[in-house]
Amino acid sequence: MNIYVIGIGLIGGSLALGIQKAYASCTIYGIDSNENHLQEALDLGIIHEKATLKELKNADVVIVAVPVNVALELTLEVLNSIQENTLVFDVGSTKVDICKAIEKHKNRRNFLATHPIAGTEFSGPKAATSTLYQEKTNIICEVEKTAFKLQEKALELFSALGMRIRYMDAKSHDKHIAYVSHLSHISAFMLGKTVIEKEKNERDIFDMAGSGFASTVRLAKSSPAMWTPIFEQNRENIMETLEEYILNLIHFKELLQDARFTEIYQEMENTNYIKQILNGILVEETN
Amino acid sequence: MNIYVIGIGLIGGSLALGIQKAYASCTIYGIDSNENHLQEALDLGIIHEKATLKELKNADVVIVAVPVNVALELTLEVLNSIQENTLVFDVGSTKVDICKAIEKHKNRRNFLATHPIAGTEFSGPKAATSTLYQEKTNIICEVEKTAFKLQEKALELFSALGMRIRYMDAKSHDKHIAYVSHLSHISAFMLGKTVIEKEKNERDIFDMAGSGFASTVRLAKSSPAMWTPIFEQNRENIMETLEEYILNLIHFKELLQDARFTEIYQEMENTNYIKQILNGILVEETN
Repeated sequence: MNIYVIGIGLIGGSLALGIQKAYASCTIYGIDSNENHLQEALDLGIIHEKATLKELKNADVVIVAVPVNVALELTLEVLNSIQENTLVFDVGSTKVDICKAIEKHKNRRNFLATHPIAGTEFSGPKAATSTLYQEKTNIICEVEKTAFKLQEKALELFSALGMRIRYMDAKSHDKHIAYVSHLSHISAFMLGKTVIEKEKNERDIFDMAGSGFASTVRLAKSSPAMWTPIFEQNRENIMETLEEYILNLIHFKELLQDARFTEIYQEMENTNYIKQILNGILVEETN
Repeated sequence: MNIYVIGIGLIGGSLALGIQKAYASCTIYGIDSNENHLQEALDLGIIHEKATLKELKNADVVIVAVPVNVALELTLEVLNSIQENTLVFDVGSTKVDICKAIEKHKNRRNFLATHPIAGTEFSGPKAATSTLYQEKTNIICEVEKTAFKLQEKALELFSALGMRIRYMDAKSHDKHIAYVSHLSHISAFMLGKTVIEKEKNERDIFDMAGSGFASTVRLAKSSPAMWTPIFEQNRENIMETLEEYILNLIHFKELLQDARFTEIYQEMENTNYIKQILNGILVEETN
């Protein structure tokens, strides 16, 4: 089986490593606009060979793991270059725009829109691990538009990587992911910004920061090149979540201002309900 | 050595376990207003004996590990009951109010104001671990107001627990800790609230949440009973940090609104500087 991974950073590289582990006889071809990353991926054994977009006619599977803005045109180009039985899937954090970009393509049925909910705040091939996707959720959108045989091929591959599958329409995906992923990133980035602005001249002060701060601000280490296009594509939904978040913060500040501590207690107690929700998320606690 | 720990939850219980490990011959007496917690602490071997405030005259060390509002009066009561060579220290997350509460007490020199920067989002004796304080920072305020011999005794104890020490005036402590700890908690609580409000009728949606969300919202599991009085005592500083955080979020929302994505990229890239800061914080990454 010939697998072409386009974009061999954290996400694509981890898929490559996971697939290598699951399919001993596959060959992983890497394609990346960053020649240093490509060489690094080869040196690290993440890919077996370097390749270019011109070779995609040899592909059984093509994985598009590039920033979501780049993915739009690139996926069209990929769909132009493949054979009848090639499976193409993307792994981007937004699904409406990619589904729209390729909806009229003659090879639409070769494409599957997916979003594996997995990642870390690190980036590049060095950050890739073969176990990134184990026991993680993969959201598949518009499954009915993909050829049945290629659905099967994809599901087998995701199952081999240890993922569980959920089906969702692209619009719902983008709306909900704004809450449970995109907003967290903005919240962390702005927390980091606020603290850096205030404390930049007092680096010692960060000795005061504990694991609580580290955990809350962790996502502020994420790659701007990956996240800017996500924010761009999911702008409407994100603005709505951000508006609600800001209103909740303003309300909390008013409660503080007016010394309404019984209500502050109540706000926190109600939100402790998040414990039950998080029990469903497989994550190693930091403490 | 007779150690009396008042409040045997996560913080006090972890101190008790750490001290037991470091001093084989000590006896740990537990005092708690919650009889269930006290019994649990005894059953778990966190304390050797249950005790009451009336027995403090036997104490070599008294640790005040209760919510910061309770600590104010309680520490006065403790200082009324001790012997000449008893060390009393608190471990609260605010330092101005406690230092002020006891400043005129005749036994002021028996008291040391401390804030070990360690904790988790869990609470109660079951959450206690002997290693919570290892390689963590302990901030000591107004050290010059504590008797020299009792300073020594305290430093020996903190050293045995594996902590590093920083000295700071109480006002600076409260100002900086608002940024690097208190604001993170509010940020997490309001993120949790925003998502729960939106998604409460769609529990399935939380399958979409990954470890990034879990990490950012983790502190929203924290105890309202512990945190409400902290917010109360550090209200002025927290309101200032919250104001700056809200303004940064509003600015980010405006950038989104106006589709100014180059600036959004720049905001994130500047904040990536948090990586270098976090390298100084000893924390296990969640990924």
